[in-house]
Amino acid sequence: MAPVTNSRLIFNSPPGDGPFEPGKTLVVDNSHSIDVDTVALDGGFLLKILFVAPDPYLRGLMVGPGQPALIDVPPFILGESIIAPSVGVVVRSETGDVKVGDHICGALPAQNYVVKPGLEAGLLVIQNQYNIPLSAYLGVAGLAGMTAWMAWKEFIGTAKKGSTVFVSTAAGAVGSFVVQLAKLDGCKVIASTGSADRVAYIKEFGADVAFNYKEESTDEVLDKEGPLDIYWDNVGTKTLDSALAHAATNARFISCGMISAYDTRDATVKNLLQLIAKSITIYGLNVATLIPKWAAEFFTEVPKLVAEGKVKFKEHRFEGLASFDDAFVGTMNGTINGTKAIIVVGSE
Amino acid sequence: MAPVTNSRLIFNSPPGDGPFEPGKTLVVDNSHSIDVDTVALDGGFLLKILFVAPDPYLRGLMVGPGQPALIDVPPFILGESIIAPSVGVVVRSETGDVKVGDHICGALPAQNYVVKPGLEAGLLVIQNQYNIPLSAYLGVAGLAGMTAWMAWKEFIGTAKKGSTVFVSTAAGAVGSFVVQLAKLDGCKVIASTGSADRVAYIKEFGADVAFNYKEESTDEVLDKEGPLDIYWDNVGTKTLDSALAHAATNARFISCGMISAYDTRDATVKNLLQLIAKSITIYGLNVATLIPKWAAEFFTEVPKLVAEGKVKFKEHRFEGLASFDDAFVGTMNGTINGTKAIIVVGSE
Repeated sequence: MAPVTNSRLIFNSPPGDGPFEPGKTLVVDNSHSIDVDTVALDGGFLLKILFVAPDPYLRGLMVGPGQPALIDVPPFILGESIIAPSVGVVVRSETGDVKVGDHICGALPAQNYVVKPGLEAGLLVIQNQYNIPLSAYLGVAGLAGMTAWMAWKEFIGTAKKGSTVFVSTAAGAVGSFVVQLAKLDGCKVIASTGSADRVAYIKEFGADVAFNYKEESTDEVLDKEGPLDIYWDNVGTKTLDSALAHAATNARFISCGMISAYDTRDATVKNLLQLIAKSITIYGLNVATLIPKWAAEFFTEVPKLVAEGKVKFKEHRFEGLASFDDAFVGTMNGTINGTKAIIVVGSE
Repeated sequence: MAPVTNSRLIFNSPPGDGPFEPGKTLVVDNSHSIDVDTVALDGGFLLKILFVAPDPYLRGLMVGPGQPALIDVPPFILGESIIAPSVGVVVRSETGDVKVGDHICGALPAQNYVVKPGLEAGLLVIQNQYNIPLSAYLGVAGLAGMTAWMAWKEFIGTAKKGSTVFVSTAAGAVGSFVVQLAKLDGCKVIASTGSADRVAYIKEFGADVAFNYKEESTDEVLDKEGPLDIYWDNVGTKTLDSALAHAATNARFISCGMISAYDTRDATVKNLLQLIAKSITIYGLNVATLIPKWAAEFFTEVPKLVAEGKVKFKEHRFEGLASFDDAFVGTMNGTINGTKAIIVVGSE
């Protein structure tokens, strides 16, 4: 087979502490080509990328040289492909770790084809015993699902029936799973999201109270529906301040994301005196620290829940690496039509 | 016996969100008198107050009418005695709950004599089986000690040997006990305080690194001595931000007080993104929620540790209710000569 273009989504220009700039921060580079039949594998394997997830945490890795990343993951390198959660299929292999046709998920360079020296830490051969959609391994059965499920198990266990739970950015891939975990435990769930469509989805997923935070005041909703026994925070800043003000005694907060602070790095919160007044615990969630403990149970239980329809998700698919900006911006501001954005990069 | 003056320390003028005003916020009122031999007890008992503790949390109760207290305790009432941690001796009793000569500790009106209808919740007959100083029941064996010991047991358990612990306002009644608990667990302890005298005390109590935060930069000390596995926060705001910036992965923070925010109620913190980056847990500590679980073990173990000299404390005694302002301001800004301020109100 003749060489084909190996498109790459490269980190072109650091937005620094400013906003993510569509068309500038990340660009598609088509200057590389690859011959999939002959490219040297040196004992490794060749992967064709099928799906890429434009997850919000990637914003924290778009920093200038020398600037620290917002999370404990190596930041992106200027001029090189970004590393994002992806699913690929093995097209050639010289290692016993994987065989042709295996599906792999994990953090991979966002490009059409990737040569890997072996099954590195963080890459996983998908055992799809319940035959759920492969893209789910980027959402509810992937990193987003692990984030929701593992933290709920680790920090909440099983919530007391009737507990009041507030989930912000509740229609995202993580939040929408948390809503369903809370409902499975018999909680009352208050959910905020950023569009009317998403309010509808999240009600369909079981939220008792769902609202568009751009149109309704979080404080007013929580005045009426609180106090909160559990708060799942994907937003930080003012939303976290509202939740602190409306917490019940001994409330548990899971700090999963601070999407409102990723552009500016200003995560200012004013109501921390409530921590003491109400003996609130805040669990800062870095899923990397939970994966070793919970991975086996997760991959046993969650794909089954999805296959049985006990846990739902809705995808919005974007076509091609060039659609990454639209998908990413829509994910960040909560306006995409669906709970999980998936970039379709290739097909089998 | 003829009536005697029953001096009261009354809440005279709310400082609101402004600074505590010596001579104005609280004043001694000598207009009341009491005949200790004849005052009606109505089935209750008469207590002579011996010691009062000017604990920092009292600042949170000095709020104007209608304004919420900073902690979950009824705020002070204008014109009435403040309610503060105290030790008293029973001088007459008509209840089987207490007998003459019993020593009582708990939250009591700050005045010379108090009539109580019975042994209310929060009042305790001191069983001083190890014969430690009664005033210790306001410090290391009292509310401050419970705060330190119960939270350490509840949130830390036994710290891993060699863990690095940072304690702010480490020479206070709570902090100086935490320093010693951490050393008993084999930790390296970094301690900040507000005067050279207190740096010396806290070194004597075992701190490996003790510094005067007014003269040395907390960030610079933590750059050198961190990262932190455990942070005991009595300060909030900038000190908490420094600790967040210098936390180790999976660090545990105990939010015990935010002395820097009590006057202004501005507890602004900027570095909360570190919660996620480092999977930090913050435990908001309201000792009232821990007392039911831990009280019996506390009163079995802690007075014994004090009697054996395994836990030390240093008092600074002030004489009379009129000295409350000096004691309180010295406690708040960390300049009193000792780790625990005690107001001597009466003698047996």
